[in-house]
Amino acid sequence: MCEANAYMKDGSREELIMEAVDSVEPEDGGFRLVNIFGEQKFVRGAIHSLSLVDHKVYFTRETGS
Amino acid sequence: MCEANAYMKDGSREELIMEAVDSVEPEDGGFRLVNIFGEQKFVRGAIHSLSLVDHKVYFTRETGS
Repeated sequence: MCEANAYMKDGSREELIMEAVDSVEPEDGGFRLVNIFGEQKFVRGAIHSLSLVDHKVYFTRETGS
Repeated sequence: MCEANAYMKDGSREELIMEAVDSVEPEDGGFRLVNIFGEQKFVRGAIHSLSLVDHKVYFTRETGS
């Protein structure tokens, strides 16, 4: 399985938002995360970067770069 | 390995940009993709959505949602 952990980037800090994320879909001003257990979470912001082999998805509060 | 294929979404069409993408890092007005073979590609736009269990990363030409 190739799920990833989602983190919020805040300067040099990384805060874990959700583990084992499967899908990330855009929703008003942010994204809806769904993990492999069917749990959902809304994240305000944008997708900052990905490191897929490390199973990491980074979000940022800043929208529009 | 948990790399993914990157696609550009254009309405209902999906155009393959790059296979076996590992890292996606923000760069002026878009993102730099690097795949597991070390190949690089610049994509103008934003990350639209993710479907990680399906190994798919979707981009959109529209920046700032």
